[in-house]
Amino acid sequence: MAQNIYDREDFFAGYSQLGRSIEGLEGAAEWAALRAMLPDISGLRVVDLGCGFGWFCRWAREHGAKEVLGLDLSEKMLDRAKAAGPDIGITYAKADLDQLSLPQASFDLVYSSLVLHYVEDVLRLFETVHQALAPGGHFVFSTEHPIFMAPTKPGWAIDTEGRKTWPVDQYLVEGPRSTNWLAKGVVKHHRTIGTTLNALIRAGFTIDHVEEFRPTDAQIAAKPELAEELERPMFLLVSARR
Amino acid sequence: MAQNIYDREDFFAGYSQLGRSIEGLEGAAEWAALRAMLPDISGLRVVDLGCGFGWFCRWAREHGAKEVLGLDLSEKMLDRAKAAGPDIGITYAKADLDQLSLPQASFDLVYSSLVLHYVEDVLRLFETVHQALAPGGHFVFSTEHPIFMAPTKPGWAIDTEGRKTWPVDQYLVEGPRSTNWLAKGVVKHHRTIGTTLNALIRAGFTIDHVEEFRPTDAQIAAKPELAEELERPMFLLVSARR
Repeated sequence: MAQNIYDREDFFAGYSQLGRSIEGLEGAAEWAALRAMLPDISGLRVVDLGCGFGWFCRWAREHGAKEVLGLDLSEKMLDRAKAAGPDIGITYAKADLDQLSLPQASFDLVYSSLVLHYVEDVLRLFETVHQALAPGGHFVFSTEHPIFMAPTKPGWAIDTEGRKTWPVDQYLVEGPRSTNWLAKGVVKHHRTIGTTLNALIRAGFTIDHVEEFRPTDAQIAAKPELAEELERPMFLLVSARR
Repeated sequence: MAQNIYDREDFFAGYSQLGRSIEGLEGAAEWAALRAMLPDISGLRVVDLGCGFGWFCRWAREHGAKEVLGLDLSEKMLDRAKAAGPDIGITYAKADLDQLSLPQASFDLVYSSLVLHYVEDVLRLFETVHQALAPGGHFVFSTEHPIFMAPTKPGWAIDTEGRKTWPVDQYLVEGPRSTNWLAKGVVKHHRTIGTTLNALIRAGFTIDHVEEFRPTDAQIAAKPELAEELERPMFLLVSARR
């Protein structure tokens, strides 16, 4: 069972203050890149794994999705998503992605933003997603980049010549990482890019696109603190097809 | 045109002393992992891009390859490969991988070991390889891992708590890197894993396997200095299919 960190008061309070929580999709630097990897969503049956406040579910409906199922482990998140307003085309439900089951061939797009790094057994989840998609259906997701997640002590350092660096260790030692992001003891599951992609392939997917998110020059011009994101990737974006 | 570093005396002298140059394939820690990604080679028409001393070409013939074309930019390497003995099934030829052309649908396996990081335009090369393969043919290669290649100053550091780390910077700034491995001013071309995989997909390939090489426990037991390879990946191994 996945750790339900989002329902802890300290974490939830911190998370609610992030740009992506207040501004929604446009508050997330990687959204434009992830959006570009989505198929035309109009008429599609969509699942959002880890829907949080429901920003993507609402966006999908506004862009013509036929029906959207938003799943999250956090009741606080689901309550907030539901409070954003009723939509007959959106269903929110509680689900643990480590124990997920979904009906066969019932969806055209499975989407997931920054949640898979909390999942311990991605192969099991990818197999569940694969069978839930109709043939030709898409799976598009973002996850924390393993370079970001691997280190024993993730953080910036300044080298002897004054350069900002991201010291990596333990990259090839996969498994849980306990970090102190927003709250103490947040458990994430580090795996290499290879492991993630091979799990997709083993589950039957064809890989369509792999992107190690890089802010655009325009984004850096508008928000100069994003320049440090060029030093090491924070997010991995993937699209695959059944 | 790619830099012909292997024909420089200082580089060639250093390279000739490496385990992989003296012991051949078994002297390369990643060989067993790369070998496991190869199809059954018997009866296949094979190209080795960057054949060096010809170790793989000879191995392929010993394992039943019908014919093998070994290509390299370095005349010193080709001379050494030819000197290893005549084989009617092996042809060695000089080629610049940045300007390569190959006949259509004429090969069943294209192999390349630790050479693609010298190639500037991999999309052009991947397109050349794709059209040269018969349908269903395989492309299996290793290249330096971008974590290894990205940093302005690649090398180990010790953090404030005594941990060995590999400080990464400039990961998302793709382009040439000038390093001093075996000789000064060796030029390699850094690109992310995403860029490499997307170039394969764009050239028409289906990705079959992606591996960020990790030495096995048995390898580390036999050669304890390999343990540091767990901290950051040195090699990226990929297999793809036309």
